[in-house]
Amino acid sequence: MINKLNLEKAYSRLEGKVRKTPFYKSKYLSDRWEGEVWLKCEHLQEIGAFKIRGAYNMAMQLDEERITQGLVTHSSGNHAQAVAYVAKKMGVKARVVMPENSNRKKIANAKKWGAEVIFCEKGIAAREKKAREVMDIWGGALIPPFDHELIIEGQATCAMEMLSEEEGIDYMFAPLGGGGLLAGTAISSMLFGKNIKAMGCEPENAKDGFEGWKEGERKKEVKGDTIADGLRTTVGETPFEYIKEYVADIILAREKDIMKWMKLVWEEEKMLIEPSSAVPFAAIERQKENFKGKKLAIIITGGNVDLEGISL
Amino acid sequence: MINKLNLEKAYSRLEGKVRKTPFYKSKYLSDRWEGEVWLKCEHLQEIGAFKIRGAYNMAMQLDEERITQGLVTHSSGNHAQAVAYVAKKMGVKARVVMPENSNRKKIANAKKWGAEVIFCEKGIAAREKKAREVMDIWGGALIPPFDHELIIEGQATCAMEMLSEEEGIDYMFAPLGGGGLLAGTAISSMLFGKNIKAMGCEPENAKDGFEGWKEGERKKEVKGDTIADGLRTTVGETPFEYIKEYVADIILAREKDIMKWMKLVWEEEKMLIEPSSAVPFAAIERQKENFKGKKLAIIITGGNVDLEGISL
Repeated sequence: MINKLNLEKAYSRLEGKVRKTPFYKSKYLSDRWEGEVWLKCEHLQEIGAFKIRGAYNMAMQLDEERITQGLVTHSSGNHAQAVAYVAKKMGVKARVVMPENSNRKKIANAKKWGAEVIFCEKGIAAREKKAREVMDIWGGALIPPFDHELIIEGQATCAMEMLSEEEGIDYMFAPLGGGGLLAGTAISSMLFGKNIKAMGCEPENAKDGFEGWKEGERKKEVKGDTIADGLRTTVGETPFEYIKEYVADIILAREKDIMKWMKLVWEEEKMLIEPSSAVPFAAIERQKENFKGKKLAIIITGGNVDLEGISL
Repeated sequence: MINKLNLEKAYSRLEGKVRKTPFYKSKYLSDRWEGEVWLKCEHLQEIGAFKIRGAYNMAMQLDEERITQGLVTHSSGNHAQAVAYVAKKMGVKARVVMPENSNRKKIANAKKWGAEVIFCEKGIAAREKKAREVMDIWGGALIPPFDHELIIEGQATCAMEMLSEEEGIDYMFAPLGGGGLLAGTAISSMLFGKNIKAMGCEPENAKDGFEGWKEGERKKEVKGDTIADGLRTTVGETPFEYIKEYVADIILAREKDIMKWMKLVWEEEKMLIEPSSAVPFAAIERQKENFKGKKLAIIITGGNVDLEGISL
């Protein structure tokens, strides 16, 4: 059950395990949008993404006997790295199922942290099936990428950090893929903030979350044809329940704006963010009039970009 | 005259005018080189480069009457932006002479800060000539890019900041172009540090500084055929005198390693650094055995990269 006490416990549990990442006011964006724009740098986690929070929070609460058989997961990338990293720190094996179309950098990083990578077809059903097969053979503890309360609890600690540092935030923005981060952000905002609107940001080309939220019923399929490789999945059941309840709005980014904004953030903020992390910027820009004079907090979720083959 | 008192005055003068940029220990590089590697993030200055330090320090000490006629300079890029920025803050006009082969992003930024950009042939002689012409017409105060004690004093405050935060640094690395930053770093290290070796880092394709330092006599010409656009110039007379005296060694980066290291720093540190800033990394890697177990401080000088036209 996700409540104030359990979130506070998760926060303490993760202290010293995950980085307290920088949270700073961007001059460029504050000027551009005529408000106060703060950026939470989760791409500066050791694995280059926020996913380490949920994975660690869950792994630390599992049965020790199962943990010793290893950690198992399926993920398009950043969560795979997170599980690989956590397994390494816990001294156990990690087996991660990744879709064949995953970002090469993320595959390489999962291997770098010592994980065995098993490929599967794309789509959440194929991923889950392959993960079950892996567990049938080797056993182990499943650390799902988003569809579990312990994962959501872990991701919720990101917003808790921001709220411990800054008061008066009006809006908190998180990209929406599987929904673990957005659900956690919305719950933290409600429990630890004052009148904060939690906002989901989704690519137009993978807007199952937006449609499900609007209709009050979760979509089970998504086109997922977007450069934002972390957001190609459908929203999970558990995150959806919280998102439906606590998220103020979901705003959409046009596909063509995602890369434009990624490069703009690179140039202006000098930070290498990945396409999924550019989605909130591209979405906010489209309705910037609504945010004038407000204090915005945007979670930069990851910075794992595959630069290989780019001619510079 | 550059001495302890004047450097302390420069440090105070710049407080609140330039950013005290982050200085952090890189896990990736510390592991890779088996030592302690600290990075000073001058690319996070508001203009995206350290150059603002020298320009501000000099402009604040000039005769008010001349200042009101405007600031003038010649620069391949980052110094042009610095002078444009300082002029804007002081409420006067900036006229900057830039070589035609300057990085487009740097030209655009100089204009963004309100400067008038005047193009010239490449090479320091052509730049200086054009700057004199500009001053003959409009008057104004010249803020040279590196060849002046007040500029060196300003750049020296970067190392002073590092030394105020960390003890036990064994080596400080700065890229070597015109030499203002390296001279300032060497002087600060000597006056405010304990047994620190100040190291210059130069592209092999623009190694006039290395050769001049070795022979004890400044080279007046340089091939300058390097992607590191901030380091294409010869070392200036004034910086050279300090470099000759106080720099422990100058190490060289192969041209092909510069882009490789730029991308590696992007990927691993998630920071957008420009080619010139990659030179120290490429140079250190070649003799990493010498730095094992040592505490290294590397100045990331700038992050003004032209991403336009790059297919991602």
